[in-house]
Amino acid sequence: MTSFSCPLPIMKHTNVQLAHGSGGKLSADLIATMILPRFANLALNRLNDQAVLSLPPGRIAFSTDTYVVDPIFFPGGSIGELAINGTVNDVAMSGAMPLFLSVGLILEEGLAMETLHQILVAMEQAAAKAGVQVVTGDTKVVPRGKCDKIFINTSGLGVVPEGLDLDASRMRPGDRVIVSGTVGDHGLAVLTSREKLSFKTKIQSDTAALHGLVGLMLKESDQIRVLRDPTRGGVATSLNEFAATARLGIVVEEAAIPVHPAVRGACEVLGIDPLTVANEGKLLAVVAGADAARLLAVMQGHDLGREARIIGEVVDEHHGLVALRTGLGVKRILEMPVAEQLPRIC
Amino acid sequence: MTSFSCPLPIMKHTNVQLAHGSGGKLSADLIATMILPRFANLALNRLNDQAVLSLPPGRIAFSTDTYVVDPIFFPGGSIGELAINGTVNDVAMSGAMPLFLSVGLILEEGLAMETLHQILVAMEQAAAKAGVQVVTGDTKVVPRGKCDKIFINTSGLGVVPEGLDLDASRMRPGDRVIVSGTVGDHGLAVLTSREKLSFKTKIQSDTAALHGLVGLMLKESDQIRVLRDPTRGGVATSLNEFAATARLGIVVEEAAIPVHPAVRGACEVLGIDPLTVANEGKLLAVVAGADAARLLAVMQGHDLGREARIIGEVVDEHHGLVALRTGLGVKRILEMPVAEQLPRIC
Repeated sequence: MTSFSCPLPIMKHTNVQLAHGSGGKLSADLIATMILPRFANLALNRLNDQAVLSLPPGRIAFSTDTYVVDPIFFPGGSIGELAINGTVNDVAMSGAMPLFLSVGLILEEGLAMETLHQILVAMEQAAAKAGVQVVTGDTKVVPRGKCDKIFINTSGLGVVPEGLDLDASRMRPGDRVIVSGTVGDHGLAVLTSREKLSFKTKIQSDTAALHGLVGLMLKESDQIRVLRDPTRGGVATSLNEFAATARLGIVVEEAAIPVHPAVRGACEVLGIDPLTVANEGKLLAVVAGADAARLLAVMQGHDLGREARIIGEVVDEHHGLVALRTGLGVKRILEMPVAEQLPRIC
Repeated sequence: MTSFSCPLPIMKHTNVQLAHGSGGKLSADLIATMILPRFANLALNRLNDQAVLSLPPGRIAFSTDTYVVDPIFFPGGSIGELAINGTVNDVAMSGAMPLFLSVGLILEEGLAMETLHQILVAMEQAAAKAGVQVVTGDTKVVPRGKCDKIFINTSGLGVVPEGLDLDASRMRPGDRVIVSGTVGDHGLAVLTSREKLSFKTKIQSDTAALHGLVGLMLKESDQIRVLRDPTRGGVATSLNEFAATARLGIVVEEAAIPVHPAVRGACEVLGIDPLTVANEGKLLAVVAGADAARLLAVMQGHDLGREARIIGEVVDEHHGLVALRTGLGVKRILEMPVAEQLPRIC
């Protein structure tokens, strides 16, 4: 959890005004007082309309994500951590080392400066922990009722190791599917906090930056085919995307999938399949069968992979489809969810 | 103006549903049917969470901007052109050649597919005209009333020519300030269309991608100190930023500043200073005095610089301040606007 030990800077207004997005003096105040102290670095400090960056040679991974999560604070994090970690992870799933982020804020007129500050501090801490720099940004303010408190876009840049090309099209029959830990934590944490559902055990979001784990994995095996962080749509969606791209089948062992008991309980009560629920600190890896056990062991040695499991296998059957083998030994098709089970989860 | 000759793809829903942002099947449908055909290219088509790009060697310019303009269609363009051209321009003001964009959409539940399509077609056409590729994206949907129709974030990447370092800190006394054309067009076009004000002459937004003009200028002079597109806050804000960074003064000749007669008239009626109004297809350049006339001539030979003028000079006086010499020969301080004159202009 973020600690809010950093005091709110002294601002003339206790709430965000339309003029804070005008591009004039109040915009400059907001940036100088609230934002720059959080992310100060040479590129950002120049306050040009763009950052000029020297990147190590190599291909570049470029990703973008907009965060509209409701509520903006939830057990285990806030929209702030999510906006940093989510884009770091999207960059990292190419095998790239994330280096630089942009931040685009949309603020609702009237948002408490204190709330904005808490979110910016959470972003600062998440960026520092992930070792990425926020180098360019933009802040817009819309009238009351024209957005919901705050929306954040982050785009990310990283450098892809030479020769690495992770893509589901590289999957082969016999490959194993590994998940890095329990599934469904983030979605359930947001849902239960939004709907004020009370479950005995507090479910926490798993929001975390995964590029450290990815770096370790790439060192262990050069037979990793593809990585993905199963966010919206959950593990079911990512595996279906893999199968469709590879034109191969995937068989998943239901019993092997790690689910936190509190999440399992809540999902049963709510009639939700944890495989379709968003994660924000987990990854799926498809790896050659021969490397799977070694890779798993390395993952389990990392904080973010302690509960990693091999959950399935790539097969030359039911091409484009994912089959789930249940505890009873029955195989059923695991479909991509059609409709929105949990809107505004990230 | 954009022509909407491209027919709306056949979609099951005539309006955006929450499920179109779920990450599941309907999300995939929306992307495959509405978005991919607009921007298809090798990087985007892979539909990974990130694009892996090979950039020419050199430093990279990285910029982000979020567009929340109201109304989303206005004389001369729409939020679609704005979202492409605005970020292309932010990248180009470093002297970089813009190459790649990301697009993050926030859609309001219920938005007409037809409206979304018109905006995407406008983006497609603007990107094609600017010669940039949309290589990665993200689409979120929020419930009715939680945003205002559509917000768009774009982030941009470009490559900075070797040795080039445009920054206001490089300004010197005797440098000249050039504006590439009439000021205030965009802001007034949006304002008059929003407020349903009717003026005899239709005022059109100047939205345009400026990197072609910039390329020409950089070829003509290696003594360009800094470039900026005066968007929110207008010319007054950009010049004040220049003066503050350079710790020098700027004197601007009011009579030299090109203002379209219709914009001038509307500003007089509304009590607005056109120097504080947003532009979306104009740039300010500060250049060594010796190169100013030559640079101006080259700019006037380009479609987007026909009405370029030398409007002022950098002076070793009133450091950090901009003075405006009026028609009467009186000098007054030209301040950065404090408050929001025209909210949601971009």
